[in-house]
Amino acid sequence: MVSKLIAIVAGVGPGTGASVARKFSKAYPVVLLARKPENFESLAAEINSSGGKALGISTDVSSVDSLKSAVEAIKKEFGNDVAAAAAIFNASGPFMRKPFLEIPPETFAASLNVSANGAILFSQSFLPLLLKGVELKSEHPPSLIFTGATASVKSNAQMASFSTGKWALRALSQSLAREFGPQGVHVAHAIIDGVIDIPRTKEWLKDMPPEAKLSADGIANDYWWLHTQPVTNFTWEIDLRPAIEKW
Amino acid sequence: MVSKLIAIVAGVGPGTGASVARKFSKAYPVVLLARKPENFESLAAEINSSGGKALGISTDVSSVDSLKSAVEAIKKEFGNDVAAAAAIFNASGPFMRKPFLEIPPETFAASLNVSANGAILFSQSFLPLLLKGVELKSEHPPSLIFTGATASVKSNAQMASFSTGKWALRALSQSLAREFGPQGVHVAHAIIDGVIDIPRTKEWLKDMPPEAKLSADGIANDYWWLHTQPVTNFTWEIDLRPAIEKW
Amino acid sequence: MVSKLIAIVAGVGPGTGASVARKFSKAYPVVLLARKPENFESLAAEINSSGGKALGISTDVSSVDSLKSAVEAIKKEFGNDVAAAAAIFNASGPFMRKPFLEIPPETFAASLNVSANGAILFSQSFLPLLLKGVELKSEHPPSLIFTGATASVKSNAQMASFSTGKWALRALSQSLAREFGPQGVHVAHAIIDGVIDIPRTKEWLKDMPPEAKLSADGIANDYWWLHTQPVTNFTWEIDLRPAIEKW
Amino acid sequence: MVSKLIAIVAGVGPGTGASVARKFSKAYPVVLLARKPENFESLAAEINSSGGKALGISTDVSSVDSLKSAVEAIKKEFGNDVAAAAAIFNASGPFMRKPFLEIPPETFAASLNVSANGAILFSQSFLPLLLKGVELKSEHPPSLIFTGATASVKSNAQMASFSTGKWALRALSQSLAREFGPQGVHVAHAIIDGVIDIPRTKEWLKDMPPEAKLSADGIANDYWWLHTQPVTNFTWEIDLRPAIEKW
Repeated sequence: MVSKLIAIVAGVGPGTGASVARKFSKAYPVVLLARKPENFESLAAEINSSGGKALGISTDVSSVDSLKSAVEAIKKEFGNDVAAAAAIFNASGPFMRKPFLEIPPETFAASLNVSANGAILFSQSFLPLLLKGVELKSEHPPSLIFTGATASVKSNAQMASFSTGKWALRALSQSLAREFGPQGVHVAHAIIDGVIDIPRTKEWLKDMPPEAKLSADGIANDYWWLHTQPVTNFTWEIDLRPAIEKW
Repeated sequence: MVSKLIAIVAGVGPGTGASVARKFSKAYPVVLLARKPENFESLAAEINSSGGKALGISTDVSSVDSLKSAVEAIKKEFGNDVAAAAAIFNASGPFMRKPFLEIPPETFAASLNVSANGAILFSQSFLPLLLKGVELKSEHPPSLIFTGATASVKSNAQMASFSTGKWALRALSQSLAREFGPQGVHVAHAIIDGVIDIPRTKEWLKDMPPEAKLSADGIANDYWWLHTQPVTNFTWEIDLRPAIEKW
Repeated sequence: MVSKLIAIVAGVGPGTGASVARKFSKAYPVVLLARKPENFESLAAEINSSGGKALGISTDVSSVDSLKSAVEAIKKEFGNDVAAAAAIFNASGPFMRKPFLEIPPETFAASLNVSANGAILFSQSFLPLLLKGVELKSEHPPSLIFTGATASVKSNAQMASFSTGKWALRALSQSLAREFGPQGVHVAHAIIDGVIDIPRTKEWLKDMPPEAKLSADGIANDYWWLHTQPVTNFTWEIDLRPAIEKW
Repeated sequence: MVSKLIAIVAGVGPGTGASVARKFSKAYPVVLLARKPENFESLAAEINSSGGKALGISTDVSSVDSLKSAVEAIKKEFGNDVAAAAAIFNASGPFMRKPFLEIPPETFAASLNVSANGAILFSQSFLPLLLKGVELKSEHPPSLIFTGATASVKSNAQMASFSTGKWALRALSQSLAREFGPQGVHVAHAIIDGVIDIPRTKEWLKDMPPEAKLSADGIANDYWWLHTQPVTNFTWEIDLRPAIEKW
């Protein structure tokens, strides 16, 4: 039954993740995954109080066990036959922009642990629910969407602790698009090329006009557009940047 | 005045071009460009009789003079202050899939003449109208969209008479995106990767399910989506293919 | 007989082309193609007087007839059974780095006419001689090498009159590599990313150390290296840039 | 003093690694890194008995401590002022070509642990020695070379446990090329696209001619060529495949 369809969003800090969750909550109950409850609590409350349904689950996407618990919590809430209309991976690990030889090995490992391993484990956890969405003949093809960055296609000096994970993530998304597209799941990758307009970046680009930053709600609209593409017309990859961005 | 906004579509045979024209005619008067009138006449009639407005102009996009006449005809119809909300280049030259040494030089030249030179001349002809659309603060950023193909990013054996033009076209679109994005015009490129479901391809892929072909109306929807992106969130390139396509 | 093997170089101004011709003249008689005799005369004299053999032929690579005459002149000089060990396309058309709408259509056409059409015609003219080199079991696989640029993979604002031709050229080289590699001809493409140290660029980058420019002789060495790769290990594409180049 | 220059090769099973070690041992003492001594013992003996010098060190490139021990062993053998002319990373982790949902998380982690983390740790361990090679004004710019694969640029269905690591490795190499090129270290990446002719692949492609496989010695020659490029002409990336390979 289609009412069993949910959307899962991993990485729901106050930016793209939150906007995506709000957007998809108009159509589906949304599950919000973040390590720290403070990253999803107010968002969940906001969605729940405005006619939507949101369930926040404290989850470490780089941990198999933590994801297993998340899936169990989801099934407890939505039933064992729960299916997913969308699973959106918006998480990133820590990184440092500094000379390569000054970056501790732990930083590289932590970055890969989220961007690469985390995305892999997230996909293994929720593809079964997305495939169930295909069985249920959901209105829109179930979608698995990954958030990438400029560093997903260009690996600049001093950026290796970010780009290694992001390139791995892009490889994952391309492979999954090829494997699961024919099974009816729409796997997509978005290259976010620019500064997103969120509280954390308020002081950035202050000498530029406001449209120099990407709108997080705009990104959410684009993810929704990807989600509504029919099986005849799947896009694997889009890039997104402000009109005035240099690239 | 925004009522002066039109959409121009070049290459309106019975496929993507026609679907795109129909889609954009819901919002704007559309100008249909094709060399042969039989390629736009019935489409123009259909749009005009169903509440839209269409003007077909017999035009050779590889000819400066022919495009000049087209612009004059447009100004005569819509006024000298006409502006464009969208200009969509969907034309392709002839090509041959056969051993390189068996293809006449004329075929290569003819292909480049449309895909490369034609796209350049089309852009030079209609960017001034798109920039006027920016001045008029059109609801959506004026859009210049180019139709690419698998051969825009992969140049297979025996396909050089097609791919040379398509790679040139992609280069054009990327350069224009970088130059005119900051001026408010949204330049985009679509990689159509698969067989489009049109009358001409009716007999193709007959042993496959119907969703093995791209929907032309779906492509039109995606072009419309590109058109409605705000200046904060421009996509330069999307790929489009059936879910079951091998790639 | 292997002594029938020649190398042909198109585009032999005082830079990469001249260095390549000198390098290959150590192993083969070289044919120098340029539109203007002053572009090959002193080079031919230099090679002929230093123990090599060079034949300059005034040729417009964008003209089928001119190339036909060149092939005839070559056969007259080296015999009807002449074969090629290498054919190197190093020509570029004119272009302008300025706002798109200020570039005359003729410039785009002229650029495509050399970089795209010229490369196509050059390839159609000399691939038969390269295939004859395969038959003759030349020591090194006969090689068809194209000179590209930064603009072959990145199409910057205001650079479309250069990049359209260079992307088309790259598409050509990739398609030919796929078609003629299995026939024993090594097709390669070199992305020259930076300023080449030639007389014309003497005043450029004057505030940088001398190694900020590419060495033309170094490029020639790399082309020779490509030429000597065995059939088991063909490289289609290399990039080349100064160590201190930003990219 | 230049006599202090060594070459380090990680991943020296009976294929590319061994050929590369042999090739570089003609010019430099070579250090052979592999987890299992049986992977370097006979090769070290062979090199040592044929006029070269080789030191095998049992090393796990995914372990910071193991690499530290290796560096100490190298300094003990060659002196604290040892410098590197070349460091070549040829290691790969385990992977599985099977449906994504059937691959255990440990496989993905193990693959990333070598291809991504291992390459990062290897680079952090030996870049200081390469930079010392720059100080010593080594004849050829010290080189850091990474072995990639088809899966470094194309991520096929069911190949994610290989491609994620290989894309991360390519990102690493590009970032390091941009950071360390200007410091005089030549960082390069080789896309090996095809089956390498080694004992393990003896039974593969048996219906094809012998030249359907890449020559490991040929790859070693190409790595040597990369190593000998001057600072004016660095190549970051080459692809390598048999002439008859489909791609």
